[in-house]
Amino acid sequence: MQLAMIDDKILPLKDLEPAYQDRGTWFGDGVYEVIRSYNGKLFAFEDHMNRFSYSLAQIGLTGVSIEQIRDRVLNAYSASQIENVRIYFHITRGSEPRNHLPGKNLRPNFLLVLNELADHPEDKERGIAVSTYPDWRWKRCDIKSLNLLPNIMARMDAEKKGCYEAIFVNDNREITEGAGSAYFAIDGEKKELITRPLGNEILPSITRKQVLKIVEGTGLKVAEKAISPDQAKSCSEMFLAVTTKDILPVVQFDGAKVGTGRVGEWTKVLIEKFVKLVK
Amino acid sequence: MQLAMIDDKILPLKDLEPAYQDRGTWFGDGVYEVIRSYNGKLFAFEDHMNRFSYSLAQIGLTGVSIEQIRDRVLNAYSASQIENVRIYFHITRGSEPRNHLPGKNLRPNFLLVLNELADHPEDKERGIAVSTYPDWRWKRCDIKSLNLLPNIMARMDAEKKGCYEAIFVNDNREITEGAGSAYFAIDGEKKELITRPLGNEILPSITRKQVLKIVEGTGLKVAEKAISPDQAKSCSEMFLAVTTKDILPVVQFDGAKVGTGRVGEWTKVLIEKFVKLVK
Repeated sequence: MQLAMIDDKILPLKDLEPAYQDRGTWFGDGVYEVIRSYNGKLFAFEDHMNRFSYSLAQIGLTGVSIEQIRDRVLNAYSASQIENVRIYFHITRGSEPRNHLPGKNLRPNFLLVLNELADHPEDKERGIAVSTYPDWRWKRCDIKSLNLLPNIMARMDAEKKGCYEAIFVNDNREITEGAGSAYFAIDGEKKELITRPLGNEILPSITRKQVLKIVEGTGLKVAEKAISPDQAKSCSEMFLAVTTKDILPVVQFDGAKVGTGRVGEWTKVLIEKFVKLVK
Repeated sequence: MQLAMIDDKILPLKDLEPAYQDRGTWFGDGVYEVIRSYNGKLFAFEDHMNRFSYSLAQIGLTGVSIEQIRDRVLNAYSASQIENVRIYFHITRGSEPRNHLPGKNLRPNFLLVLNELADHPEDKERGIAVSTYPDWRWKRCDIKSLNLLPNIMARMDAEKKGCYEAIFVNDNREITEGAGSAYFAIDGEKKELITRPLGNEILPSITRKQVLKIVEGTGLKVAEKAISPDQAKSCSEMFLAVTTKDILPVVQFDGAKVGTGRVGEWTKVLIEKFVKLVK
């Protein structure tokens, strides 16, 4: 006999719905993407699909047609009839009784959720506060996987401190990235836009890539290097890059003012250039 | 409008079942335990419940009564009427639309599955083969969380190599533990039973604790220290400790014979002592 129990209810295991037996729940055995549209057009769609393919390949999740996923995302977006939308989707290795080794004939599960994206202009005007948290994540943060517990713990800690986002700091006292965002600092004296180089320690952020494009012609030089929280504190400006909010100015870092404590001038320039880019 | 999509089916988000919106699936935001019984009696039940409490506390998962969980596990076991059973259960922070920050009035989800535990005496008689894999896991492996993707990737790699279990090796070229087991080596010359000391890099295995108890009186001294794969290869015996199999002799390590290539004498003594312990 095999039993299952949901809260207080006991049932035969064979009656347990596949949604409860998803390897996404058992193990976080899946990968995801978040895409947005601006004014009726999906932004950087192919970049997101390419990253999704990469994530699938890295965890050896097969039996998925990327063409089919692309069609599903486009169908859902089309059905929504929303101009500015956030689309989340994931694929897990499938549903089956819990066993570390995946079964041979598993069918991957696809789930998508879509909602209208509200603008929060006040975050861009006033800037946000961030706090640091130890980077306890795994060593393959280049994979956009469903294993996000350390990110959740970091966010919960940030909220307790009245902060909007947590910034991960690794054992070498280097900033890696935000719990749900890419991290940027600006050294106003050197006219440097600082961000960590790509590698296994961070997600290859699509918005980061866009920022590195629009910086051209602003007078800022890109410096891809790791910095410490102390070095970050001495920078004149700071911002985050994230798909759903593009550029988000940071005005407070671990309780200390960043620069003047107001949104920096270089950051404003980049925000304006981003607005033009997505028009 | 908010939409969801399961495979090709589009539905209003409000009609998406809570099982699909479990923070366990979105983020792996939950913790679990695996308990077994021997001959009608749950083994080391309180140790498992204490570890579960610890995991819950470490991820800040509140709103759970450990007494209630204990009752549920006992009820399920009692309903099963099985002598030798494996019980898996987890608690996630609850079901809600995907958002990193958990909602204020979330109700944690409890899920348990139970099945009869088959004996595999041949594994104990012949011993098993293991292969190494990079320890890509997060830095809080003392928490028994649902973020198990690196463990899955390691197991899939082991299977490809014809091995039963993967042994994690960290960046310092030290063995941490198995993908689903505690790791032990025996230095026959020094009469040392070697296992990694507890810490954030490994799970505080209940079976490991039992092994360290039963070693008393055998003539083996316990040496809690980290060893490299090369050092492991020069050991005369090797075994894993895991709740569902207790002591599992290892006779092949990354393709090389361990000792004579047969189950070691000290390991046999420990297996016998374990049998007596659970009688």
